[in-house]
Parts: sequence; structure tokens; C-alpha cells
Amino acid sequence: MPHIFYVSEISEDTAFFDEEETHHFRVVRAVPGDIIEATDGKGRIYRIELVELKKRWTRGRIVEIIKEEAPPEPEVTAFVGASRWQRMKFVVEKSVELGVRSLVVFKGDLSHPGSEKEELDKYRRTAIEAMKQSRNIWLPRMSFYPNLEEALQKASYESLIVAEMTGEKPLQKLCAGLVQPVAAVVGPQEGFSEKEKELLKNRGALFLNLSQNILRMETAFIVLVAFAMNSVRK
Amino acid sequence: MPHIFYVSEISEDTAFFDEEETHHFRVVRAVPGDIIEATDGKGRIYRIELVELKKRWTRGRIVEIIKEEAPPEPEVTAFVGASRWQRMKFVVEKSVELGVRSLVVFKGDLSHPGSEKEELDKYRRTAIEAMKQSRNIWLPRMSFYPNLEEALQKASYESLIVAEMTGEKPLQKLCAGLVQPVAAVVGPQEGFSEKEKELLKNRGALFLNLSQNILRMETAFIVLVAFAMNSVRK
Repeated sequence: MPHIFYVSEISEDTAFFDEEETHHFRVVRAVPGDIIEATDGKGRIYRIELVELKKRWTRGRIVEIIKEEAPPEPEVTAFVGASRWQRMKFVVEKSVELGVRSLVVFKGDLSHPGSEKEELDKYRRTAIEAMKQSRNIWLPRMSFYPNLEEALQKASYESLIVAEMTGEKPLQKLCAGLVQPVAAVVGPQEGFSEKEKELLKNRGALFLNLSQNILRMETAFIVLVAFAMNSVRK
Repeated sequence: MPHIFYVSEISEDTAFFDEEETHHFRVVRAVPGDIIEATDGKGRIYRIELVELKKRWTRGRIVEIIKEEAPPEPEVTAFVGASRWQRMKFVVEKSVELGVRSLVVFKGDLSHPGSEKEELDKYRRTAIEAMKQSRNIWLPRMSFYPNLEEALQKASYESLIVAEMTGEKPLQKLCAGLVQPVAAVVGPQEGFSEKEKELLKNRGALFLNLSQNILRMETAFIVLVAFAMNSVRK
């Protein structure tokens, strides 16, 4: 795949690129008149002629839409407890790769202090880079909540599954199939508090023990999301 | 968990540590007479008194066995096509974390040149470090074969599953359950050759399409092994 850029705003036949992408244009020595390919993270790839390259933004003219893709199926929202950045980075990348519709980060009761900040911009940049590298041209919606309760209140889902050591074996439970959309919840690396577990239970969550070993949060994330996806795939 | 070491050889009540571990002893400024904890990667944790610390090896005296664990269940052998080291490192670490019994690396027909070397020692060191970090005290058996055919000939398994984009949906197939031991095969990042696919087919492999997106080899590895494990868990 040739180099692909991320276009942050489309207005009629005009395309705007942000500071980060403008920096990438400089790196590849792009000049006005160059034709490049860019995705909007909403399933489209455009061919765009660069018109004006400034210090902080770039403007282009849309030549044509060269690809248009439906949103990733099935519809899965992944919830994850805020953890140290190195783990979060991995989780954001894997969300794009696995094709979740939304990634909801919440500050868990036991989240490591310092990993509790809202870092949506960092998540977004990471997701954009992951999107360019994978062939997935849908950017997950990303949001941050100060606690799990608020995060769950704002989400809409039919089935709720949770990675938890004391849970049940997943295959027996998932083979019957879940109802879309599915919310898949992984705690922070430090785990869930009792209060959070109670909250999830009250909302009818299915607790799944993904492995006989203790999995790292990012491994549990991949496994749970893959189970969720496959359980509702048509 | 306190710092744990890896003891490479046990002979009656004498424990030998290799050069790498001897280096670790130096780092933590261990001296003769110190009592440390070490695992043999075969399910045991020992309390050991250090006796003699040399440049390239260390000798100790076993004080007692403080933990003894059965091998990880269920019995899954993971096969993986040799790929660039950064990916292989991750795969080796995840093998330990997920608790596979054996990890078989094979040089795939399409394996990236340079990733085709037998690097068992590097794999082994990585696995030992991963073992120390996780709570899994079983080291997977590790082997390397110059091609998939030889690798499969030397392995014993009852069920054979393969990660492959053109395969079937996993949940429907796995819910019926597999028969232990299971061999789970992931190609190199570059994929399988037609000849390799034919070989797998002739051996009765079940081809599974793990995702509607194209997964990276290391993501496919985690998902396939997790499916294999859960499919035969009692």
C-alpha cells in the first residue's frame, strides 16, 4: 500500500489536514500540486490534490473518492480500564486492528495513579497511525470517563461481557451467541474493585475466565474482543 | 512476588545457574550464603542457598522445594512461522503467558529471509524472562524446524487448527470441542504458501478465519491459542 494520510476535515471538495499530518507532508517533501491518498477514518479513501501547505495545516482539493467501505461488523464496543501508557498504546492499536466500533477508556477504581488522565488526543493519534498501517479505514470512536459507572450509562449495548479470573469458561457461554451490539469490558492492569464487579453484575454482565493463567491486561483485551466479535459474526 | 531466578540444572541437592543468571546475581549483588528463590521452568520453585559465584556460573545448595505445580492444562502446542525478531519475541512471551506446552517455530516457505535462522537460544532466554515476570513456572518446550512438514511430522496432536483468512468461523467449529492435544498453527507474517496449505489440508487441519480484518501474525497467534485452549478446557 502506498503511503496514506489522514484527512481530518472534509467540506464539499476541500480537504483539511491537521498539524501532525502537515508535518508528515514535510517529511515526504510534498508540494502543492502533488496528488496523495488520504482516509477520513470513516471508511473512505480519497485522492486529493494538495493546494496550500502551511506550518500548522494543509489544504487540498478532493479529486475523487477511490474507496468506500461499510463500518466494521459486528458492532463491538470495547471498554478498558485506564492503565500505563505503554499498555494503553497497545490496546488502542489492537482496537483498530480488530475493528471495534468504539473504544471507551474509564478510570478504574484501582487504576494506577497517573494513568487516570484523559488522554484522548494521544489515543487518537495512536489510532490514526495504526489505521494507516493496517488496512482498516475506520477509526473507532474514542471516549474517556472518570469511572466505569458513567461509561456504562453512556453506552448502548445488548450484551455485556467481562474478562474476570473468577468467571465462567467462555466457549460454553458464547457458543449460544450474544446479541449485538456487544460491550466487552477489561479492567485496568490492577483489576476491578468489588464495587465495580457489583456494578457489572447488576447490569447483567457475563463474567468470563479467559485463561487458567493470569493474563496481562492487553492479552485479555485481545482475547475478549476476539471472542465478542466471533460470537456475533454472521 | 520477590525476585525469582532460573536454575538451569539440578543434581541431587546441588543447583547450577548459567552465565546469564550469574550476571543477574551480580546485578543484585548476591553473595555466598544468600538465600534466593529460583524456578526450574518445570513447575517447581526452590529455596536455594548460594555457595559459589564464579564468572560464568553459580552453584547453590537446595534448601527446600517451596512450590510444585502440575503442567499447564490443556495441552496445546503452538506452531508459528519464523518472522522478524520483534514479532517472534512477542510470540515467545505470549506463549509463556498463555501457558502452551510447546512452541514449535518453523521456517515457512514465505518467511522473511533473515528470520529463518534457528535462534532457539534467543527464544529460550526470552521465555525465561517472561516466566520470571508472569506467575507461570512452566517453560514451554521449544524447537525449530527448517520447514512446516518436518515440524508437523515430529509433533503429536489429535486436533490441528490453523489461522487462515479464507477459513471458517471459529466459534461454530470450536464449540463442538477439540480433542487434546491440540496443535495450533499460525503462519509467518508473510502467510502460508499454497504448498503449506495443501499439506495442512492433507493432515486434516481445520482452517479458521479469526477476524474480518487482516490480523497481524502476533494478534492471530494470541487469538488462535486462546481459542484452542478454551476449546479443550475441562
